[in-house]
This record gives sequence, C-alpha cells and structure tokens, in this order.
Amino acid sequence: VSTKPNLAPPSGSRDFLPEEVAERQRVLAIVRATFARHGFQPMDTPAFERVETLTGKYGEEGEKLIFKILKRGEQAATGEADLALRYDLTVPGMRMIAANRHKLPRVFKRYAMGPVWRADRPGKGRFREFWQCDVDILGAASHLADVEVLLALAGVLDAVDFPGFEIRLNSRKVLAGMMTRYGVPAERAGAVVIAIDKLDKIGMAKLGEELDAIGLPPGVATALHRDLGAADLPDLLAERLAADPVGAAGIAEVRAIVAATQPVLPRGAVRFEPLLARGLDYYTGAIFEFFALDLRAAIAGGGRYDGLNAMFAGKPEPVCGGSLGLERILMVLAERAKTEAEPPLVYVTVWDQDGRADALSLVQDLRRGGVMAEVDLTGGALGRQLQAAHDRKARFALIRGPDERAKDLVQLKDLVSGEQRAVARDAVVSAAMRG
Amino acid sequence: VSTKPNLAPPSGSRDFLPEEVAERQRVLAIVRATFARHGFQPMDTPAFERVETLTGKYGEEGEKLIFKILKRGEQAATGEADLALRYDLTVPGMRMIAANRHKLPRVFKRYAMGPVWRADRPGKGRFREFWQCDVDILGAASHLADVEVLLALAGVLDAVDFPGFEIRLNSRKVLAGMMTRYGVPAERAGAVVIAIDKLDKIGMAKLGEELDAIGLPPGVATALHRDLGAADLPDLLAERLAADPVGAAGIAEVRAIVAATQPVLPRGAVRFEPLLARGLDYYTGAIFEFFALDLRAAIAGGGRYDGLNAMFAGKPEPVCGGSLGLERILMVLAERAKTEAEPPLVYVTVWDQDGRADALSLVQDLRRGGVMAEVDLTGGALGRQLQAAHDRKARFALIRGPDERAKDLVQLKDLVSGEQRAVARDAVVSAAMRG
Repeated sequence: VSTKPNLAPPSGSRDFLPEEVAERQRVLAIVRATFARHGFQPMDTPAFERVETLTGKYGEEGEKLIFKILKRGEQAATGEADLALRYDLTVPGMRMIAANRHKLPRVFKRYAMGPVWRADRPGKGRFREFWQCDVDILGAASHLADVEVLLALAGVLDAVDFPGFEIRLNSRKVLAGMMTRYGVPAERAGAVVIAIDKLDKIGMAKLGEELDAIGLPPGVATALHRDLGAADLPDLLAERLAADPVGAAGIAEVRAIVAATQPVLPRGAVRFEPLLARGLDYYTGAIFEFFALDLRAAIAGGGRYDGLNAMFAGKPEPVCGGSLGLERILMVLAERAKTEAEPPLVYVTVWDQDGRADALSLVQDLRRGGVMAEVDLTGGALGRQLQAAHDRKARFALIRGPDERAKDLVQLKDLVSGEQRAVARDAVVSAAMRG
Repeated sequence: VSTKPNLAPPSGSRDFLPEEVAERQRVLAIVRATFARHGFQPMDTPAFERVETLTGKYGEEGEKLIFKILKRGEQAATGEADLALRYDLTVPGMRMIAANRHKLPRVFKRYAMGPVWRADRPGKGRFREFWQCDVDILGAASHLADVEVLLALAGVLDAVDFPGFEIRLNSRKVLAGMMTRYGVPAERAGAVVIAIDKLDKIGMAKLGEELDAIGLPPGVATALHRDLGAADLPDLLAERLAADPVGAAGIAEVRAIVAATQPVLPRGAVRFEPLLARGLDYYTGAIFEFFALDLRAAIAGGGRYDGLNAMFAGKPEPVCGGSLGLERILMVLAERAKTEAEPPLVYVTVWDQDGRADALSLVQDLRRGGVMAEVDLTGGALGRQLQAAHDRKARFALIRGPDERAKDLVQLKDLVSGEQRAVARDAVVSAAMRG
C-alpha cells in the first residue's frame, strides 16, 4: 500500500514559483544596491552555528524557537544537538566580526542578507523560514551612525516605492530614566517596560491592570498610567526626565537623531515614541521601528546595542544596526503589482528531425548575442510549437523550413501582432533585438 | 571562569568577507543570467524538507550525510527529527514541481540556485554547506533536452571564462548493455559498475582485483578487464553492443548528443566516456560530467532521470538535468584573479560638530544621484578622516569647512592623484561621477 506523499513544503516554509522568485530577486537586488550605495559592505555566515553560539542571546522566549540539528553518525542516537539554524543575522554577524576584527577598519559598516529560521507559530506574514536584510555599524559611538542606519533602511523603502510608513524612535535611556523618575524598583523595571511596549495592542485599560498586577510601590502604577495616557507625552517626559542624567541623555539622543535625520530622509517621518521598547534585551541606546501605516505593523527595527560584540570579542565596542523584514515588505508590494517572470524573447521552432541541428545553431547564436532564447522541446507539429511559444509569452517565433534554409533566410513571426517576415539568417540576432 | 568562545564557523562551513561575497555575487549573477538566457525559469524551495521527503532517495551512503532537525518544544526531549536540511536541489525540486504541475507548461525548464548541506568529511573544495546551481527539463524525452542542459551549463563556464574543461558523456543504457553482453549477472551489475566508475582513481591493476573479488562467472572478469583497458574502447563497445537492443540504444543516444552538441558548444569538447557511471541510482539514460582539466575533478554533472518525479507525482515523466558545483568553480576562478569589493566612490568628511547636518545632506545627495558614498563616522581630525577614506579605497573625499559653506563650494579631493579643487555645491554629484 503506497500512501500519497505530502507535497506541501514544511509548515511555515514556502516554495516559490518563477514569478515569485523574480519579484524576490528584483527587491533583493534593490536592497543590495541601496545598502552598497550607503557604504555598507556584504558579509555572509553559514545557515547553522554551534548551539552554544546562539544560546543565552535571545532571552527565554526566543531561545525556544531555535531549530536544533541532531548530531550525525553514531551520535545521532543520543538525540543531542550540536548545531542550530541561525535565528537572526546579528549574533552570527558579531561572531564573524570578532573572528575577523583585525582585518576590518576601525569603523566598519556591514550588511547581511539571507534566510533565518524560527519555530514560531506560522501566521499572516509570519514564517518559519524568512529573509532578513541587516545593516550594522561597528566602532562608531556618534549618533551619526544611528542616523546612517536609519537612512540606509529608509533608502530601501524609498527605492522600492513602499507606501506610507513612519519611523518611531526611542532610547533605552529614556525608558531607564522613566523607571527611575517614577520610582519603579530595578527588579520590576523589565516587567513594566514589557507592559508599556504592549500598550499599542492592549489599550490603556488593560495596561492599568497589567501595571497593577506587577506589584509596584503605592502610587507608582497610578502615576505611570496617568502620564502614559497624556497626549503630550514626549514633552511631558522631556520635562520630567531633565533631572535624571540617564533619562536626559536619552532625550538628547532622540532629539539629535530626529534633527539630523529629518532634513535628509527621502520619505517618511521620524517621531519620538516614548512607549517603544523593542523586545530584545541587548539594546543600550537609541531604538527604532519602521511602522507601515496600512499594514499596522513594523517592517524594520533595530537600535544601538553597544557591547553586544563583547559576547564574542574581548573588548566591547559601540555597535548599532537594523533589520528589514523582507517578507512583510514583499507582501505589501505584492498587493500593488506583480513582477512577471521574464519571458524568452525568441522561441525557435524545429521544422523536422533534420532541422534540429539548424535550430540549435540558431538558438545558440541568439543566446551568444545576449538574447533570451529557447528551442522547442515539445516535438509537436508547427502549430503546437507556436502555441507553446505563446504559452511561454515569447515575443517572436523563428521558423526555418527547407525553403528558408535554401535561401539562407529565417521567418521571424511577431507573436503579438501575428505578422511574419523573412530576414537573412545572419541578421536574425539584430532583427530580434530591434523588435 | 569564562571560557573563550569558539569564533570559527562550524566545521565544513564558511564565513565570507566582503570581497568573497562580492565574487560569489558576481558569479551567481552570471549563472542566473545565463540560465535565463537559455530559457530556464527560477524556482526556490525551503532549506529544510520533511525527513520522509528526502529518505529513500540518495542511497545508503548519501542518506547518512543528511542533517536532521530535532522536533521542537516538548517533543525535543524525544531526540527525534521531523525535518532535514536539503541534500540537493533535485529531490525538493521534484516535490515542488509535483505540487504545482498543473500550473506549469507541459515542457518545463527550471533552474534553482542555493545552498545544500551534507555532513561529509570536509576537505579541499568539499564543504558541509555549499551551493549548487541546477537546471532541469521536465516533460521532454528528446535528446535535444539533454543537449539543452549541456549547453546551459557550458554557457555558464564560457561566461565566467572557466579554463580548460571537457564534457564526458555516457548512457546508463551503455552500461546496462555492457553488463548483458559480458555476462554479468543482474545481481552483480551494480557492484561491477561501481568498480568501473573508480577506474580513474584506482588504475587497471586494482580494477582487476576488484572485479575478481565480486565473484563473477568464469572468464567474465578477465574479459571485462581486457576490454576496459583497450585504447579504442568506444569503438570496440559500439561494435560489441550492436547486438544488444538496450546497449545499442545507449550508443545511438550518446552519438546523437555528441553530434548535436559539438557544433554549437561555446567551448569544451564532448567525449564518449564508456566508463563514466555517476553515483546516484536514479539515472536512466544519458549521464555526463564536466571535467576540469587543471583541477582533475568534476565541476558539473547530471543526466537523464526519467520517472524520478513519480516518487512525488502520480505519473512518471521524462526528466533530465544537471548541477554546477559552484564552490569548485569559484576555487579555480579565485586562483586567477580577485574581485574587489566595490569601494565607495566618495567619502564625505565632517568638518566639525556643526558640520554634521551639512555632511549628511551632501552624502544623501550623492546617494540619490546614484553615487556610492559614505560619511565619516570616525569623528577624528581631518587628517585621520582622510586616512579612513584612503583605507576604504574611496576615489574622492569631500571637504567643506566654514569658508566653503559661505561660498557654496565643496573641496573635491582626488585620493588617487592627491589633487584638490573647489566645485559648486550643487555640481558635486556630476563632478564626482565625471571623475
């Protein structure tokens, strides 16, 4: 009894048909060119890392989502894993940069593009295999580096003509200052920040409940809840945090980045969003999110994570970076227009068995001339071959029977207009290219 | 006690520095364009497949090399695997084509490019993560399809200007005919073919021993050993196999492909090589190998594997295809010349804190004009910034102090000649592009 094999790709992963590959390649080429134009240099790491390279970096929730690879050979039976698929491009990138630090300039701008894997519950725009496109700057503490990251990411969205988005900016220092000024005990600060980060989704009423549940000193939850709902929260915070050195530094940082970015940003606005927290533990300064207005979701995010590289390198260095979520961007672009897989320009028919060598010679001459061309492999009658040429959306079909061969001619049939004309055999490449 | 982390990529995998990524991207772009010019359309499948999609396809030796992925969550403790990294692009491609057969034309030419993973012992030019570039033609039984596969692969080697190679061609039918004509029992044929396939490496004396060890009827090993060493083996076999229908069909197939390919091949010769067997079980007709003469190794291989798609689809169809080994090709090309990571054309210096906004505006104007440009992030004195510009191999540095700002000028410093001249601020993009 043979069971019917499951032909679908594994849950959360996808197959891509030619037109889908074409659209991905088109957008990836734009991302690559934009990152390069901004002075970033490409780096690649393997799909898998040693398990210990990835563990202890993403927090408990993140770590559960790592795909682990069984040991091979006799050790497979132990059920142990020694390798894991990369969860993002940041941690492998830090490992690689640490290994090659001496070969790289003091200020180093890298980009990385590739698939990452997370055993997340699949959903709309959320996959288990998905692409990230990252830029990172190592060795620059100046807020100009944060600005450069924002400009590179915004440059991509501009180049692909992505519809409405805004850049939401905050600093971990603003959040730290808030915790101090509102009297949140250090051991409760994490829980409060997580609750605040969710305000967008849960609303003010639910936020109040969550703050109450954390168990803060009397009055703290109430004061936070009152102020977080204020319409002029950015100004209110700027005033409140002026007396806290960390908080004040955060406010200054955010203002400097907004001021520097806004005049040179191709499109989109930068907005101070004091409630933005970003999940990952490792951020230390400015954090940001590119928020797509129609999609109501983030399409890019990042921030400054000074010292993260010290996990791998002896010496902590300033680092900042950001990541574009390619899948969501493609999802939005797909709603607008389809990229067609490039059709062949010329379809060379085969007159009969004896005409095969001649047809091959024709198709190869076209290809050598840079023309996308294919030769009929259906082996059917001429009418059927022309139908196959139509199905392939070819612009021209070439026909060459004994008469044409005797006269050194080729029939060039325009498959759009239906017109057909004879051209000299040795002029066929230029005739096809002229159209 | 903190132990020093291991910074190397996992055994058999590699990190790629900017100039290495640039070279890989350059060659991959050529492969993609060449396959497209030959009328092949791109398809992509995920990095992993369900374990059962891959098992039972590659033979015992191959199957041992598959990287398997542990189940997640609570099931991780079972030590069981449900997913596996793809071992090649062929089997996942057949699964995907079967799932989408109704959307594809009857004769379908696909290409696929991407990494595959094998837990092989790493060695020179042999990795555990490596790229393959495949072309396959589904639905065409004609030898023209085999020829088209050869032409597409040869087209890539021609386009990258790969040095000397030859195409070794055989047919599984020739091997089958040999087994019949020399009286090899069916149950011993596999062992004999494997021994013959190794002749290149082991030599005639050792081949004799191997044939003797297989346990063939009296005289069979001796006859095989004598004829396989003949200088005119192709002619000798053509004569010997004439009386065997399968063998004769194989000889005719090989001859037809040589005759059709040779006149239109951009470079390289096609040679009938009756000892070529190719490891994989699934080949049914023509098989081939692109052999690099300097490297003494195969850089591409493939053949006809009619019916392999029936593993996934209900109905067997004619299929043929081939695969380029990107890593070996890159290894050979790397010995010849290095691709430089593209340096930024313009490095914009920052005069002082007050000059930052101005510098950002300059660098963004350049990028919008299509110029690869970066702004100084070292924050050092001008001399140090110019040194950084040199280190990045920039062609020009831009300098703009208070004087230049007052006069709406920019100093354009040629970092090759050392010359410096003032240009109007709004002419800076064209000045940089003119050089």
